[in-house]
Amino acid sequence: MRHQIVIIGGGPSGLLLAQLLLKQGIDAVVLERQTRAHVLGRIRAGVLEMGFVDLMREAGVADRMEREGILHDGTILSYNDREVRIDFRKHAGRPVTIYGQTEVTRDLYEARDATGGTTYFEVADVTLHGMEGDAPYVTFRHDGKDKRIDCDFIAGCDGFHGVSRKSIPDSVRKDYERVYPFGWLGVLSETPPVNHELIYASSDRGFALCSMRNMNLSRYYVQCSAEDRVENWSDARFWEELRRRIPPDAAERIVTGPSIEKSIAPLRSFVTEPMRFGRLFLCGDAAHIVPPTGAKGLNSAASDVYYLFHGLKAFYADGNTDGLDSYSQKALDRVWKVERFSWWMTSLLHRFPDQSAFDQKMQEAEIAFLSESEAAQEALARNYVGLPY
Amino acid sequence: MRHQIVIIGGGPSGLLLAQLLLKQGIDAVVLERQTRAHVLGRIRAGVLEMGFVDLMREAGVADRMEREGILHDGTILSYNDREVRIDFRKHAGRPVTIYGQTEVTRDLYEARDATGGTTYFEVADVTLHGMEGDAPYVTFRHDGKDKRIDCDFIAGCDGFHGVSRKSIPDSVRKDYERVYPFGWLGVLSETPPVNHELIYASSDRGFALCSMRNMNLSRYYVQCSAEDRVENWSDARFWEELRRRIPPDAAERIVTGPSIEKSIAPLRSFVTEPMRFGRLFLCGDAAHIVPPTGAKGLNSAASDVYYLFHGLKAFYADGNTDGLDSYSQKALDRVWKVERFSWWMTSLLHRFPDQSAFDQKMQEAEIAFLSESEAAQEALARNYVGLPY
Repeated sequence: MRHQIVIIGGGPSGLLLAQLLLKQGIDAVVLERQTRAHVLGRIRAGVLEMGFVDLMREAGVADRMEREGILHDGTILSYNDREVRIDFRKHAGRPVTIYGQTEVTRDLYEARDATGGTTYFEVADVTLHGMEGDAPYVTFRHDGKDKRIDCDFIAGCDGFHGVSRKSIPDSVRKDYERVYPFGWLGVLSETPPVNHELIYASSDRGFALCSMRNMNLSRYYVQCSAEDRVENWSDARFWEELRRRIPPDAAERIVTGPSIEKSIAPLRSFVTEPMRFGRLFLCGDAAHIVPPTGAKGLNSAASDVYYLFHGLKAFYADGNTDGLDSYSQKALDRVWKVERFSWWMTSLLHRFPDQSAFDQKMQEAEIAFLSESEAAQEALARNYVGLPY
Repeated sequence: MRHQIVIIGGGPSGLLLAQLLLKQGIDAVVLERQTRAHVLGRIRAGVLEMGFVDLMREAGVADRMEREGILHDGTILSYNDREVRIDFRKHAGRPVTIYGQTEVTRDLYEARDATGGTTYFEVADVTLHGMEGDAPYVTFRHDGKDKRIDCDFIAGCDGFHGVSRKSIPDSVRKDYERVYPFGWLGVLSETPPVNHELIYASSDRGFALCSMRNMNLSRYYVQCSAEDRVENWSDARFWEELRRRIPPDAAERIVTGPSIEKSIAPLRSFVTEPMRFGRLFLCGDAAHIVPPTGAKGLNSAASDVYYLFHGLKAFYADGNTDGLDSYSQKALDRVWKVERFSWWMTSLLHRFPDQSAFDQKMQEAEIAFLSESEAAQEALARNYVGLPY
């Protein structure tokens, strides 16, 4: 079998890349380790930068997102008694879009069904070959048979635990990592969101986030110990804890209900360099992880997709390899700035187990400065809505 | 003996406060533990915010500063190969003034000689009494005799090691502190400064600062171990190390010469709360210390002097105690923002012994973001030239 591109990973980055390529007449096959139902069942973030929405539009997959997505013009940061609203329109000239990653993935699969393009689910033993030469190929098991696909390029969109990054020799790769000493306990509930914009709240009991997927689907989080377990958290305990961390007016008007999903996620910053190895290009979580504060996970995958798509498009249009050659550097330049923003928001809004009284005062002073400085609000807003590609 | 105000400490904050009060017909006596020559010999910072210059003007002590001070419209940050110039005029509408703290102190003493006002040097055993009542007094030994001064208020301008802060009971005070795991080795030399603006440089060998006092007096620093000793640093070794840390063009054109002063200073952030205890008011280093990165030491003392002076002025004009009652809160609100800025600049530009590769990437990304973001440059510039009082 031969395809121009093999995309490892059928999550939103891989599928978005596949759809963008398809529109240019470039043929990409997608290999996914899980079932389609499993991929569609994953609960992830729901705040999309305009750059991501633009890419979905370019891929022809933005109709439902444009109908059902909710535009947010700002967000609230609260720290103990102090609240600061960051006005995205005023400071950065554009809003963000609230639309669940689950919905993004569904739209992408439906588009793929409609436009065609091969996808293999439940593949096993995926192995990458010949990345350093000009005839790479991928072998895997599917439906009880060994398969091989020859290709021009491989796109590694298979996430942090995927095979792609690990296929780059250790002698070539340098990993950068920070593991935060806490997790996020998240609850999804079919209730109206407590506020029309997100609330990032830091209290003496720890961080909490009031987020949403749509007007009847709320997503709430509380900072918890990294060793905590979902079994320790009844719905009642969760709502009680959340109420104690968010501003009093929000605590009073919050509508609670049964959780339809509850999970604990660790918080980690991670980047691998380089993001290209010969004919293999890493995209999204395969190359970098951000803590969820600031909602940059999917959005930082999108900028990789943007750079890689344009590199491939130029290559297939006229053999120009500039975009592919500069891919790793361009992608990483932006990735590091996004990593910094996510690290900064995480550091600013969480209570750390080893935090001194001085450290907490630094957080409070940063919030105080932010509340008074249009420049600081603008710097935050421009990062939040998305740095330019 | 009776005076309206007793000022403990004859450094620049105490003397500036005394001169401001004198102009309002308020009588303040100054007690200084050292000799006048010792006070005038201390080498300190040399970057003054406009707010400080305005206060000196209000005190009638700004003539020489206005003649000899050098206005700086910006400063350079360099991080390995990257340089960012922060434009103060463009982003904050005003410059800073380069004028040594030693010169400030000299001008203040000369003004005090001219206008009158009692100053006791070489006092010992200074003890504060009755701060919680309405008849405070201070006892001390001077010239072999025990003395007592009754007063309305006591201003504690006697620095970090002074008696004033320690006179507030531990049960009332809360201290916040961070000690940085390095020091600054400083050299003063009678050479023209390497650059017309300051250069803050972070290199793989550590931080360095190219500063100045005037056009023929340079002040240079290199980050060193907190345990290092001046004896380990010949002039030749110092210049060699400095050259390796600053941008290549600066290293090439630097003019070196014999050091006329060489010392190692530890880096510390410290704040005590509250800054008022009954009739005692803490000012400057007595209440708070910043690391020298960003030159906020004397400048943050000046905002305390501003708030205290206006509180006392209103009190003596018409018995209004609002300014005195809000002194601690107002002063601390600004102090904490200045502490944050100094901590942030210190964290951004130094290499920390326990810094991970990820941490260093965060510094690099912050510099990269700063170099591209007008908003981030503005936030820095507004802090550097001085937040409003």
